[in-house]
Amino acid sequence: MLRFEVLQTDPTCEARRGRLTTPHGQVDTPAFMPVGTRGAVKGITPGQLVDTGSQIVLGNTYHLELRPGAELIEQMGGLHRFMGWPGPILTDSGGYQVFSLAELNQIDDEGVSFRSPVDGSQIRLDPETATRIQNQLGADLITCFDQCPPHSCERGDVAAAVERTVRWAERCKAAHRYPDRQWLFGINQGGVHKDLRRACAERLAELDLPGCAIGGLSVGETHDQMVETVEEVCPLLPADRPRYLMGVGMPRDVVAAVVRGVDLFDCVLPTRNGRNGYAFTATGPIRLRNAQYREDADPLEPGCDCITCAHHSRSYLRHLFMTGEMLGPILVSIHNLRFYQRLMARLRDLIEAGCAARIIEAFPIAAATADDGYLEATDA
Amino acid sequence: MLRFEVLQTDPTCEARRGRLTTPHGQVDTPAFMPVGTRGAVKGITPGQLVDTGSQIVLGNTYHLELRPGAELIEQMGGLHRFMGWPGPILTDSGGYQVFSLAELNQIDDEGVSFRSPVDGSQIRLDPETATRIQNQLGADLITCFDQCPPHSCERGDVAAAVERTVRWAERCKAAHRYPDRQWLFGINQGGVHKDLRRACAERLAELDLPGCAIGGLSVGETHDQMVETVEEVCPLLPADRPRYLMGVGMPRDVVAAVVRGVDLFDCVLPTRNGRNGYAFTATGPIRLRNAQYREDADPLEPGCDCITCAHHSRSYLRHLFMTGEMLGPILVSIHNLRFYQRLMARLRDLIEAGCAARIIEAFPIAAATADDGYLEATDA
Repeated sequence: MLRFEVLQTDPTCEARRGRLTTPHGQVDTPAFMPVGTRGAVKGITPGQLVDTGSQIVLGNTYHLELRPGAELIEQMGGLHRFMGWPGPILTDSGGYQVFSLAELNQIDDEGVSFRSPVDGSQIRLDPETATRIQNQLGADLITCFDQCPPHSCERGDVAAAVERTVRWAERCKAAHRYPDRQWLFGINQGGVHKDLRRACAERLAELDLPGCAIGGLSVGETHDQMVETVEEVCPLLPADRPRYLMGVGMPRDVVAAVVRGVDLFDCVLPTRNGRNGYAFTATGPIRLRNAQYREDADPLEPGCDCITCAHHSRSYLRHLFMTGEMLGPILVSIHNLRFYQRLMARLRDLIEAGCAARIIEAFPIAAATADDGYLEATDA
Repeated sequence: MLRFEVLQTDPTCEARRGRLTTPHGQVDTPAFMPVGTRGAVKGITPGQLVDTGSQIVLGNTYHLELRPGAELIEQMGGLHRFMGWPGPILTDSGGYQVFSLAELNQIDDEGVSFRSPVDGSQIRLDPETATRIQNQLGADLITCFDQCPPHSCERGDVAAAVERTVRWAERCKAAHRYPDRQWLFGINQGGVHKDLRRACAERLAELDLPGCAIGGLSVGETHDQMVETVEEVCPLLPADRPRYLMGVGMPRDVVAAVVRGVDLFDCVLPTRNGRNGYAFTATGPIRLRNAQYREDADPLEPGCDCITCAHHSRSYLRHLFMTGEMLGPILVSIHNLRFYQRLMARLRDLIEAGCAARIIEAFPIAAATADDGYLEATDA
């Protein structure tokens, strides 16, 4: 019921134009997945999401298990039906959130125990539990429970996290009940240490999983470190299976990773920036609270075909943010998501034309300095 | 450029089926106008508003003058273009807000001075200013600057407010620059005192204004007092001109007023209740935070054709409110607006069938007790 085809490769770089077929529809890759943490992309209806060109969304296992719980979602017919999104869904495993957000009480080779920030109860996550939860949620693509070490970690700790991540992946594969309708992705860890990344890739290859995620690369490393790591890892991954770079990133990060062979991305940046009044454009950020937009009758980005740019001026959007109207975050989130989806469509076109490496000429924002001024993914 | 036709009257009551033609499109009456206080119906895009069946929206002169100011909106091409709403708009005059919200510094026959809650500056509103502002905003229907006394007022104070409102209406008419493309409505005041309402209607009739608003009836009086007052006032108003009951109200209020000859309504109830997790249904309120909806797979209202009911369960909507997801307020506001617009469509159908007085049989919610449990228009 699931299939991934590489339709075309680009002779100028490692970029691939592909198509992922799932029980809930197709995804043209390279693809960007908006983040629907708790079963909702913040402020955006499923219909609006379709209109931005999004074909697949991400849900967070950790947040959904805390509230309302995977049991309830399963009882309501699974995550697709629960959130009213008929298209493909990917769920992360909760590993990243547990290690970055939770008040950890115990962590060992077996798994992790932590205190629920909602009601203080003890919660257990381990490979079997994370897989069971994702089986209940029913996403088309699911991920192995992994240990994602912070960027500041010592090499020895990163090596231990790799070892644990690999052993947990075996257990996830063994626990996975629906391999025919949910593809389980392994997660490559290893920080910025190329030999650890390589070792991880080799060990995971033995599990013969249908897809591979690259984790631990939106945790504080530089753009160049991310790019070098992706450049090292991608050639080690099976060429016929989808590659997903977790939590990345800024437009320039996405472009750099596509050129090196990544197929799937997710990031909170378009919606988080949108909620806070920062609009993405091909020439850099528009911070709508700035006084310079008070009398600006232009759309956020001339030429953009989103409903925000079709109907509203920068002046109006600024007014919405200055008065705290919730329509402001909604409209700018819609534009930012459309911006990302237009970028992905452009990348797919360029790969088909065999010249993706020239994307940086086509998209000035792909230049390293163009990100300045946006909120980071880790900002509040 | 403006026209109002009474297409049909109902032999069983005073209800009228009409059509208002404006430079920005037609409105089928009786009509309900969603409230776009600051140039946005909270959380709802213009496209979503159209999908609820709304044909005309209301903007608040007071709030729009405070931020961003009528000058800016005029410079941006007027309120329609500024808010991206191509259809008809009505603006109130700011009178109600000035007398209920502002820190008043001076009030006399000339006008009102108050302190801006935004920046503390002194602001002046008088008939000429309120009319000039509404000319700049450019709504299709505008209203006279009036004095709206609180329900607790002594009779003498109400009489003085009526007198002032009538004299201010003369000045508004004199100041109005675009009578051919903006219809100026007089406002009938007089509280629950029938003789004062009658006197006000007679005095306003001399001004020969193209429409009449009934003010001061969403300020704390009972449902029965409202109905009796509307029953008294409507026959005093010109039969060939539109009648607008300001700020009303609950579904049963709207139904009772339609049956007595009112054509236009506005109220914050559908959106305010929606933002707070209260859904309107034909059988009474659904308070989504209640635990009883945790596992409820039904839509808010079976048979409703809004996008919320088409795609989402009560269980999901409850989850959105329990986790503070902004999509919850959006989806329930959309349902509530659609609920009101379906009620209006049903009323129009019944008038065409000549049996609007039987609406209460068709709509149990039109019974007096069905409102229990909703937030009031004046709640936070």
